[in-house]
Amino acid sequence: MRSTTPHEAVPATTPAASLVFTTVLSHGPLTRAEIARRTRLSPAAVTKAVRPLMEVGYLVEDVDEGARPALGRPANLVRVDAGRALFIGIKVTGDEIIAVLADLCCHIRVARHVRLTDREPAAVLPALTALVRELLLEADGFGVRVRGLGLAVSGDVDRTDGVVRYSPFLEWRDIPLAEIVGTATGLPVTVDNDVRALTVAEQWFGAGVGLSDFALVTVGAGIGCGLVVHGRVVSGAHGVAGEIGHLSIDPLGPPCHCGNNGCVEAIAADPAILRGVREATGRPVTTAAEALELAHGGDPGVREVYARAGEAIGRAIGSVVNVLGPERVIISGEGLAAYDLFAEGIRDAFAASAFGTAAQCDVMTRPLPFEEWARGAAATAIQSFIGSDTR
Amino acid sequence: MRSTTPHEAVPATTPAASLVFTTVLSHGPLTRAEIARRTRLSPAAVTKAVRPLMEVGYLVEDVDEGARPALGRPANLVRVDAGRALFIGIKVTGDEIIAVLADLCCHIRVARHVRLTDREPAAVLPALTALVRELLLEADGFGVRVRGLGLAVSGDVDRTDGVVRYSPFLEWRDIPLAEIVGTATGLPVTVDNDVRALTVAEQWFGAGVGLSDFALVTVGAGIGCGLVVHGRVVSGAHGVAGEIGHLSIDPLGPPCHCGNNGCVEAIAADPAILRGVREATGRPVTTAAEALELAHGGDPGVREVYARAGEAIGRAIGSVVNVLGPERVIISGEGLAAYDLFAEGIRDAFAASAFGTAAQCDVMTRPLPFEEWARGAAATAIQSFIGSDTR
Ligand SMILES: [Zn+2]
Ligand SMILES: [Zn+2]
Repeated sequence: MRSTTPHEAVPATTPAASLVFTTVLSHGPLTRAEIARRTRLSPAAVTKAVRPLMEVGYLVEDVDEGARPALGRPANLVRVDAGRALFIGIKVTGDEIIAVLADLCCHIRVARHVRLTDREPAAVLPALTALVRELLLEADGFGVRVRGLGLAVSGDVDRTDGVVRYSPFLEWRDIPLAEIVGTATGLPVTVDNDVRALTVAEQWFGAGVGLSDFALVTVGAGIGCGLVVHGRVVSGAHGVAGEIGHLSIDPLGPPCHCGNNGCVEAIAADPAILRGVREATGRPVTTAAEALELAHGGDPGVREVYARAGEAIGRAIGSVVNVLGPERVIISGEGLAAYDLFAEGIRDAFAASAFGTAAQCDVMTRPLPFEEWARGAAATAIQSFIGSDTR
Repeated sequence: MRSTTPHEAVPATTPAASLVFTTVLSHGPLTRAEIARRTRLSPAAVTKAVRPLMEVGYLVEDVDEGARPALGRPANLVRVDAGRALFIGIKVTGDEIIAVLADLCCHIRVARHVRLTDREPAAVLPALTALVRELLLEADGFGVRVRGLGLAVSGDVDRTDGVVRYSPFLEWRDIPLAEIVGTATGLPVTVDNDVRALTVAEQWFGAGVGLSDFALVTVGAGIGCGLVVHGRVVSGAHGVAGEIGHLSIDPLGPPCHCGNNGCVEAIAADPAILRGVREATGRPVTTAAEALELAHGGDPGVREVYARAGEAIGRAIGSVVNVLGPERVIISGEGLAAYDLFAEGIRDAFAASAFGTAAQCDVMTRPLPFEEWARGAAATAIQSFIGSDTR
């Protein structure tokens, strides 16, 4: 089923073609003139880039009846043919696997969850492979081929080599994930850091559309940050970037699993909050939901733990804004459930730490459920498919 | 003298032409094939970009006699014709103006210094204008026209509008510098933040050549940082970026002029060091040279002040590396004079704060005298001239 005929193969993906595709994906349908304006390519270059993508059917052109001029040629609209290809995106958390089947427009067609009771690769990988097979069967029902699989994992991930170098939550080290899952499923596999994958989805379809510089700050089990600078996701020369969880903001602060003291993550991530709540109350609190209930019940010691966490997050955001000056900071992650408890601390600490006009940065919150993270993983698979990861 | 004939005017500067020009400037002489490889443009696009630049004489092509093949066409080498245009670059510090006359390859032909006794615009601007007139006379001697003037000033500078919004060292607020100096000199004027200007020079000709991601950290009267991400200097959506001097690393640290506490600049910049040295010794120390002498004389309290400053700088570098993961961090600025006193603190704090593989970043020092900063200002004028600031 997954043999390819030459004509069905990946289109010629020049940097210009990738740029045109992602522009139409985020902003389409668009006229060719509008594509040229947004990509800053010449009309001739747009035509050259569009042609092979149309030949294989990934882009289609519709006559824009509404805009048909009285005289002259109508301005046709170019759009992505969503149903022309399918992709699977998977996010692996500490206790579940979330998988989506997405079309070429990265719309979710099917979503699946599987609980994990064991984080060992020997337990996770068979469950993951079984989930992929299930979604491949679903894809057969649509009569459309799955062109790629994106896997999103937290931690230090080498996308180029497809290796999870170190994932603290999963306790994985040097797992050649792309190779293992590629062999098991027969699919081209893209492995990326989960926050970077979500950042791609936000850039293409979310609160980052049309922005050349933004940051996505995720709050929850860890504190992460995806960055888009000059229109492209920052990966770091050595694979590390956006590690705002390990900005040390207090030399006398609590020790962090990274070996440093006073890291944002050691103050504001779920494990740190739970520890603080246990210390403040003497109760054996083990879940974020229990801690949240105590805070909403009005326990002042517990509320203080959240306030300190909010302050740490606000200072981390201030640091990102002082270093990069993005247009927008999007705060997301499962930790948003406690946002009412964080909000004042974030606001005050951000205002105190943002330097000069950097304080004008638009800081917003946006709930993104784990399906959206899996969608981000599918977006990385589309990136690889269309060659836009190498731009 | 400075009227332009159409043929002498600025060449058609498409993004591709600017890219080709700066590539040849940094790496040339280059064959057309090598230009295409480095810019990732097609050979046809290179030819199209090169042609107008050759017509106006900014690029020239030499037959590479050494590489003449036995058969077929020789591979000619394209290079910038250094003598084809001149630019003036000026750096304004708190107590002097440093000006250079640079050619199209940004080589310094003439350098001039003027001491300032008063930082008021009413005093600085006439001195600056007189210096420009002097260099225009020098340019007449070369028989080559000056095509632009670059001005580099510390603080919050809006390059697009040519306005110094706020320069703490000069105590300037909302000075429309480009307009004032442009009117007085008749030259096209580019105004930029001084660290960003120096970063352009490092990217084109210094320790940043060939790197797509690097940081330039400057230490001295202030603590600044220029950033290149994805091959372009980061300016910040609101004009602020690289403000590592105002990363707060200690909530109990000394107050900073920005209103926050424990900023890197409030611990490690010259004024903070001088204050610390006065407190440690009880002596009325007012210059960096005096403080340095006491430290080199072995005073343990003074050495401790420098050690704490080094630690703050190391933590700031760790923050930049955790957020962006650059390939290299270049440490420069007049504060390098005390580097032997900073070194251990920087090294240890960087090692403690850099997360995972980010610690592999190459951290180096590089002395860059103020002429080099003025050269950076000339580079920004060349950028504006060749249109590469809008890429
Ligand atoms: Zn840490
Ligand atoms: Zn400050």
